Amino acid sequence: MSRIDPTPSGIAPATAPDDGGELRSRPFPVEEYTARRAAVQARMAERSLSALVVVDPANLYYLTGYNAWSFYMPQCLVVPASGEPHLFARSMDAQGAHYTACLPRDRVHGYPEDLVHRDDVHPFDWIARRALEIGVLTDSADAVVATETDAHFFSPRGFLALHSHLGRASLVDSHELVNWVRVVKSEREQAKLRVAGEIAQRVMEIAVAGIEVGRRQCDVVAEIQHAQALGAHQLGGDYPAIVPMLPTGETAGTPHLTWSDLPLVQGEATTVELAGVHHRYHAPLARTVVLGRPPERLRSCAEAVSEGMAAALAAARPGAQGSDVHHAFASTIARYGLHKESRIGYSIGIGYPPDWGERTVSLRSEEKTVLQVGMAFHVILGMWMDGWGYETSESILVTESGADRLTDVPGGLTVKE
Amino acid sequence: MSRIDPTPSGIAPATAPDDGGELRSRPFPVEEYTARRAAVQARMAERSLSALVVVDPANLYYLTGYNAWSFYMPQCLVVPASGEPHLFARSMDAQGAHYTACLPRDRVHGYPEDLVHRDDVHPFDWIARRALEIGVLTDSADAVVATETDAHFFSPRGFLALHSHLGRASLVDSHELVNWVRVVKSEREQAKLRVAGEIAQRVMEIAVAGIEVGRRQCDVVAEIQHAQALGAHQLGGDYPAIVPMLPTGETAGTPHLTWSDLPLVQGEATTVELAGVHHRYHAPLARTVVLGRPPERLRSCAEAVSEGMAAALAAARPGAQGSDVHHAFASTIARYGLHKESRIGYSIGIGYPPDWGERTVSLRSEEKTVLQVGMAFHVILGMWMDGWGYETSESILVTESGADRLTDVPGGLTVKE
Repeated sequence: MSRIDPTPSGIAPATAPDDGGELRSRPFPVEEYTARRAAVQARMAERSLSALVVVDPANLYYLTGYNAWSFYMPQCLVVPASGEPHLFARSMDAQGAHYTACLPRDRVHGYPEDLVHRDDVHPFDWIARRALEIGVLTDSADAVVATETDAHFFSPRGFLALHSHLGRASLVDSHELVNWVRVVKSEREQAKLRVAGEIAQRVMEIAVAGIEVGRRQCDVVAEIQHAQALGAHQLGGDYPAIVPMLPTGETAGTPHLTWSDLPLVQGEATTVELAGVHHRYHAPLARTVVLGRPPERLRSCAEAVSEGMAAALAAARPGAQGSDVHHAFASTIARYGLHKESRIGYSIGIGYPPDWGERTVSLRSEEKTVLQVGMAFHVILGMWMDGWGYETSESILVTESGADRLTDVPGGLTVKE
Repeated sequence: MSRIDPTPSGIAPATAPDDGGELRSRPFPVEEYTARRAAVQARMAERSLSALVVVDPANLYYLTGYNAWSFYMPQCLVVPASGEPHLFARSMDAQGAHYTACLPRDRVHGYPEDLVHRDDVHPFDWIARRALEIGVLTDSADAVVATETDAHFFSPRGFLALHSHLGRASLVDSHELVNWVRVVKSEREQAKLRVAGEIAQRVMEIAVAGIEVGRRQCDVVAEIQHAQALGAHQLGGDYPAIVPMLPTGETAGTPHLTWSDLPLVQGEATTVELAGVHHRYHAPLARTVVLGRPPERLRSCAEAVSEGMAAALAAARPGAQGSDVHHAFASTIARYGLHKESRIGYSIGIGYPPDWGERTVSLRSEEKTVLQVGMAFHVILGMWMDGWGYETSESILVTESGADRLTDVPGGLTVKE
C-alpha cells in the first residue's frame, strides 16, 4: 500500500518472514513491529496479564501495521502473554488484512457477515468463542484478561458479549497499556513525525493564504484538504484523525466547530486547527488569522500567549515533568491576568478518527510523567472567551537539547489587513 | 453557523423560543426538532422508558442540531420520558454548544476539564451525578433507563461509571431507538439528501476524471476532498463520515483500504467509494475505474452486477421488504454464477465518523423491514474477489413511484483507455 523509498522518512520494503514470505511494503520493517510487541508483552508480564484485547485502531496499527477504514465494525487484536497475536475482524476486512497487517493469514480471523448490525447477537460473541477455541484466550480462574475499556469503538455491548464468555477469568482494565508504550517514539517514528510536520507547515501556509474576506469557510477547507492529501516532497499525505476546524467570528470562542458555507467577514478572527499526516503519524498545528485590524483584547491576549508558548517550549526538556511545562505557561500568562482552565497539550503520534491525541500524557498541573527524548506533544494554547477566542499551537519532539518544533510557521496572531 | 437561504435545501433562520429568544440559523427550523423529540418520546412510552441516554453523535444532531467535533470526549443527551432533554459535554464544548444545539444554555452542562483522560475517574461519573441531581435521571426501583450500548464513543468504562450510579434503576439496551426513528426522512431531510446527491455526483465526476496512469492515489484524493468541501450550487460540502476509499490493483479485492502515494498503473482497476455531504446528510457513491482494457472476468462481473442493480432498484418500492430487494439482486447475479456473501445496502441519512450507515435496516435475506416513502438507502454492490474486485453503488430515496437515485452518474464499469 505504500511507496518504497530509500529515505528515512520513506518506507522500507519488508520481506515479512511471518506472513508466508510474501513481499509487502509497509511503513516499517518487520523488526520494528517485533520490538513493539515485545515491549507490550513485557508490560503485560509486569502486570501478570494472560492476554490483552486491543481495540483502539491506533494500537492495532502500532502493533501490526493493520490499516483500513474497518474500525466502524467490531474488531480487535488479542495479544497473549507470550507468542503471536491474532486479529479478529469482519470477514470482508479479514480477507485483505494481510495487505497492511504484519500477520500471516492464519492469524487473521473473519467473523461472518450475518453478525453485522444485529441487536440479538454481537460479533464479540463470535470473537470470544474463536479466541477461546484457538487458545489465545483462556477462561480459567488464574487467567487475567485486560481490555481497553475506554477505547473508541469498543462498545458496552461488545464488552458485555466478551465478558459473557469469560466466567472464570478476571477481566481487568488495560489502563491504556499499549498507548503508554507508544509514548516514546523510535527513530523511525520520529522520522514519520518530521514528514508530518513538513506537511502541516505547507498546509497551514495554504490555509493562511486562503483566508480572505468574502470567501466561504468551505472554500478554504477545500484547499486545506487538497494540500493535506498531496503531502510534501513527494511523500503523500494521509487522512487526519480530525477534519480541519475553523471557528470564526463570534464562534471562535468555542474550540471544536468544523466549518460552514458562510463567507469570511472583514474584522473577524478565524482560528484554524489542522494536521499534517504521514503514514498515520500526526503533526497538528493551530493559528489565529484576523482579517483587518485586531481588537486590543485579541492583540494583547496573543502577545501574552506567545510569551507563554516560549516559556512552555523552553521547559519541555528531558527530565522535566509534564506539570513543569504547564507551570511555565501558566505563570507567564498569569502576569498578564490570564488563566487557562484546560490542559495545554497532550502526547501525539499515531492517530485515527476521532482523535489525534494519544490519550496518555496531558500537559497540566497534575501531570507527573517525566519527559524523555523521543516523546512528542501538541502544545495547544486555546483561549476560548465568551464570543471570541485565540488559539495557537506547536507540535514538538523532545530531543537531547530540548523541544524541537516540527513546523516552522510564524507564531503569534496572523494579521491580514 | 449556516447560510440563510430561502430554498428548501437551504437553511431556515430559526428563532428559537427555547434558547432564550436568540436568533440562530440552523439547518432546520425549531418545529423539526420538536417533532423528532416527540417521535422519540412516543417510542420511549411504548417501551415504558423513564429516560434514554443518547451518545451517538448522529442521534445528538438529529434531536438537537448539536454539531461539533467533540465526540472524541464523553458526551451525551439525556432524554426524559416527558419534558426537555439535557446535554452533557466537556466544559469547553458545553460553553459553545448553543451555537448549534437547539437547547437553552441552562440545559447544557459542562464537566470539569480535570476529568479528561484520567483512568481513576470518568466523565460519566460526573454526568450521572449531575443528571440525578437535576432529576433528568432517577435512580428508583421503577425507573427504566435505556442506553445506546452499541453506539460508537460510548465506552465500557463510561457505561460502567453510569451504571455505578444507578443501583436501583433497571439499565436496559436502547436497541437503537433513535436510529430507528431516523429511518423515515421528513421532507426537509429529503431535500438535504438531494443536495448531498448533487455534491456526490460532482465529486465522482472529478474522481473519474482524475484517475490517470502515473498519478498518485493521493493526488486523486486531493481533488476528491477539494470537491467534497466546495459542494454544489453554492451550497457548501460538509465532511464525510468516511474518507475517500480507493483500493487499487490487487488490493481492489478488499473494501476498506484508504489510499497511498503509489502511482496508478496501466491495466489496473481502482474502486472509488466516496460521499457527497450537506449538513451531515450523506449520499455515498461507488464506481470502479479501469485504466486500459478490462480483463474478461471484471467485464463480465460488471455486466451481471449492472443487471442485478437494475433489479434491486426496481424492487425497492414502498411495501416491499428489505429481503425482497436483496432477493432481486441475488437471483439475478446467480444466473451468472455469482454470489455475494454480505448485505447489499443499508439505510443512510445523517452520518458522523466512522460510519455513514444508520445502523438500522440492512438489505439482506433476513431483513423484514417494510420499505416506506422517505426511507433512503445506499445500495452497494461490492464483489471482493481474491486479488481483484468490482464495486458500484447508488444512493436512493424511496418515493411513491419507487427508488429515486440521488445521483446521475453512468453505471457499470468505467473504462478509460
